[in-house]
Amino acid sequence: MAKELTSRSENYSQWYNDLVLKADLAENSAVRGCMVIKPYGYAIWEKIQAELDRMFKETGHVNAYFPLFIPKSFLSKEAAHVEGFAKECAVVTHYRLKNSPDGKGVIVDPEAKLEEELIVRPTSETIIWSTYKNWIQSYRDLPLLINQWANVVRWEMRTRLFLRTAEFLWQEGHTAHATEGEAMAEAKQMLEVYATFAENFMAMPVLKGVKSANERFAGALETFCIEALMQDGKALQAGTSHFLGQNFAKAFDVTFVDKNNKIDYVWATSWGVSTRLMGALIMSHSDDNGLVLPPKLAPFQVVIVPIYKNDEQLAAISEKVNELIPKLRKLGISVKFDNNDNKKPGWKFAEYELKGVPVRLAMGARDLENGTVEVARRDTLTKETVELEGIENYIEKLLDAIQENIYKKAFDYRTSVTRNVDSYDEFKVEIEKGGFLLCHWDGTAETEERVKDETKATIRCIPLEASEEGVCIFTGKPSKQRVVFARAY
Amino acid sequence: MAKELTSRSENYSQWYNDLVLKADLAENSAVRGCMVIKPYGYAIWEKIQAELDRMFKETGHVNAYFPLFIPKSFLSKEAAHVEGFAKECAVVTHYRLKNSPDGKGVIVDPEAKLEEELIVRPTSETIIWSTYKNWIQSYRDLPLLINQWANVVRWEMRTRLFLRTAEFLWQEGHTAHATEGEAMAEAKQMLEVYATFAENFMAMPVLKGVKSANERFAGALETFCIEALMQDGKALQAGTSHFLGQNFAKAFDVTFVDKNNKIDYVWATSWGVSTRLMGALIMSHSDDNGLVLPPKLAPFQVVIVPIYKNDEQLAAISEKVNELIPKLRKLGISVKFDNNDNKKPGWKFAEYELKGVPVRLAMGARDLENGTVEVARRDTLTKETVELEGIENYIEKLLDAIQENIYKKAFDYRTSVTRNVDSYDEFKVEIEKGGFLLCHWDGTAETEERVKDETKATIRCIPLEASEEGVCIFTGKPSKQRVVFARAY
Repeated sequence: MAKELTSRSENYSQWYNDLVLKADLAENSAVRGCMVIKPYGYAIWEKIQAELDRMFKETGHVNAYFPLFIPKSFLSKEAAHVEGFAKECAVVTHYRLKNSPDGKGVIVDPEAKLEEELIVRPTSETIIWSTYKNWIQSYRDLPLLINQWANVVRWEMRTRLFLRTAEFLWQEGHTAHATEGEAMAEAKQMLEVYATFAENFMAMPVLKGVKSANERFAGALETFCIEALMQDGKALQAGTSHFLGQNFAKAFDVTFVDKNNKIDYVWATSWGVSTRLMGALIMSHSDDNGLVLPPKLAPFQVVIVPIYKNDEQLAAISEKVNELIPKLRKLGISVKFDNNDNKKPGWKFAEYELKGVPVRLAMGARDLENGTVEVARRDTLTKETVELEGIENYIEKLLDAIQENIYKKAFDYRTSVTRNVDSYDEFKVEIEKGGFLLCHWDGTAETEERVKDETKATIRCIPLEASEEGVCIFTGKPSKQRVVFARAY
Repeated sequence: MAKELTSRSENYSQWYNDLVLKADLAENSAVRGCMVIKPYGYAIWEKIQAELDRMFKETGHVNAYFPLFIPKSFLSKEAAHVEGFAKECAVVTHYRLKNSPDGKGVIVDPEAKLEEELIVRPTSETIIWSTYKNWIQSYRDLPLLINQWANVVRWEMRTRLFLRTAEFLWQEGHTAHATEGEAMAEAKQMLEVYATFAENFMAMPVLKGVKSANERFAGALETFCIEALMQDGKALQAGTSHFLGQNFAKAFDVTFVDKNNKIDYVWATSWGVSTRLMGALIMSHSDDNGLVLPPKLAPFQVVIVPIYKNDEQLAAISEKVNELIPKLRKLGISVKFDNNDNKKPGWKFAEYELKGVPVRLAMGARDLENGTVEVARRDTLTKETVELEGIENYIEKLLDAIQENIYKKAFDYRTSVTRNVDSYDEFKVEIEKGGFLLCHWDGTAETEERVKDETKATIRCIPLEASEEGVCIFTGKPSKQRVVFARAY
């Protein structure tokens, strides 16, 4: 095969890069750190978007759109926010080019300097809260439950396709509430939405928890997160939901008159997932043959490959296939019939394996005679011959089974590499093996920093479901519950 | 009413601005020239997107995503393109901020200057064709039929909500073909898609034509366009589809091996519509009471307002409404039941009139007794009392009738202000009255410029359906067909 991948055991990181490129998901662009999302990759992202958008709307949210640019001064209005975000940004300083005096190309027109520089949004809390100030006067204007689908830019020095890129696509929810309790409930609700999406659609088990102060979003009082585990034993933060308290309302002076006619600052949340989920999806399930996609997010769920020696055979097969396709579509199953005559069946088999199509049907002359079809599962790489009559119902069930099996495999893997660790000596050995290490920790940033410096492991989250109490494995001080350590993407 | 609009006859431009703000469609942001699209406005844009996206996919296109930034040098690779586009752009020169030495806020870090400036895309031909170079080797790689939904930035000096903003949202299709004929057919096909969308969904009649050389897209050999007419008699370019020839392939050296094993440059098209369509939609149909939305693009098509004196009455009405809602939804009709107790029916009536909801149902105590409901049409502002039994079918037909009536009204208006003009004296009088003037023109840029300077009218398009031949009304030289003159947005 021309498109052979590096194996995971040989070089996991290279395997990932190979896969993203060879499965036509994305590639690096001419602009440093920015990717091109190719049609097949984008089709998966569209599926992700559609499901999340539906879930957001079902929980009462609406979409809107705020400017790409943020005035520089806005970033410094919230003290913690500017520390975390204002540094590695794309800065617009001019608004015009002019012909170069030497006649070659264009140069920046020095006359067209902006009075105040504009920052390409790294996240939109500041521009949105400056807008909300005009929208909120009374408790009757609350809650505001708004989401935006947008591109953002963070000038990352080391980039990797989907996982860390200078520009990425995401959604950012920004909600405004009359009470602390409501805002906190919203932040938790969106964490649940993300967890449900990750598990039910991406077939990716996630831990739900809160971030330690070190890992918290710049400007948040509490950051909730879902943490997934990749096949190489490294963790990946897949989504965050922030309880922002009244920080942004105070920074932008957003107050409201409550039911008792008292003036108070508005309470806020923000929450987001990004094209990083594509990286998580790829690394959760795929194998050395290529992508493995959960049926619920596959651009097409079934591919049909005809095997024929002459036009007559192809015509006979096509007739059967053209009867089957509408039956599948009626069940909501997406299907592609690849009758391209330029490629051989073997090439097609490898191609759709690489692209992670959940179910492949192959139909040849003998199948026609016997009234059968060959059904191949991408997740298990197994094949069987099935009667054509009623196969649409068989496939419907099979897709459910594949979705479930992919989840179970990821869940079992995670379980197998999640363990309690009760001493720092053991920790230093275990962290090399990867996986989630559940440890008692004294709750201090100092200890967390020390462990990170010495082992590159960070606290991925403090699980929402608390374990027993104990003593910190690093300092021996009291600990209220185990927390999750891992090396992370 | 608190939300009263300026009337169209008093000040059309002010009426438009009032309406956009008061109907909660969009507002200006803290960033010069950039708008905030508010949830109600964005919901209309989502409807527009969904329909267009479906139509693009039905014609074989797929979506992808290309970088926001374009290296400065790319813009000057296509000579005509740089003249048209490279000038009024947002220019990123730096990638980092740092704390200000005076401790107040942040400043641009002079150490973090980019070697080559990046331009925020004003359109993506250059970055996309630099990418296509790697995707295309053989005729087997063609055609590429790719669309992108994205934000773009053009540093406009005078901006108006939706009609002309520094940042706007759009889609841009970029296709690559093996032959000139195929590319030309694609450009024409997409013009038809736009025209069909404008007429069938926006209920907005459009003229189809080609642009004169003066008005052509920078880098195109031919620009096809749809031109709409607003209620004030001014034209609005609603969508363009460009036949780019081999210009961008030559600029980025994109060649392919054809079926005869010969190397040739690839043929290209690009085509786009933007949030400007929102402006066109608003100005095509709305009146002094507010928005008038075609049912096919209304965020909700039916609003139900209960009229009650006490909780008991509300409960009885709600029971009936809750039986009706699923019947409407089953027919694909979107409906909102506004049982908000804080607002009076009169306020609600005015509010939904302002927001252009096509059908309003009001139900009171007497309706309950009689088994009726009051049905109000937004387009005609008429009311009638209808039997509740089977009303869902009545409403389904009514929505179709409204869609048709809105189109017909716009069509009849356009017809009434479209006329042949056969002398320049007459032209100067008629152009003051607005509308489309069909005139013979000698085909020269000089004449077009002169007319523009003297009357502010431009050639909106050379219609695809040619009229009789004649002589230019400005110079007396021969003319092959009448062209469409108008003042334009």
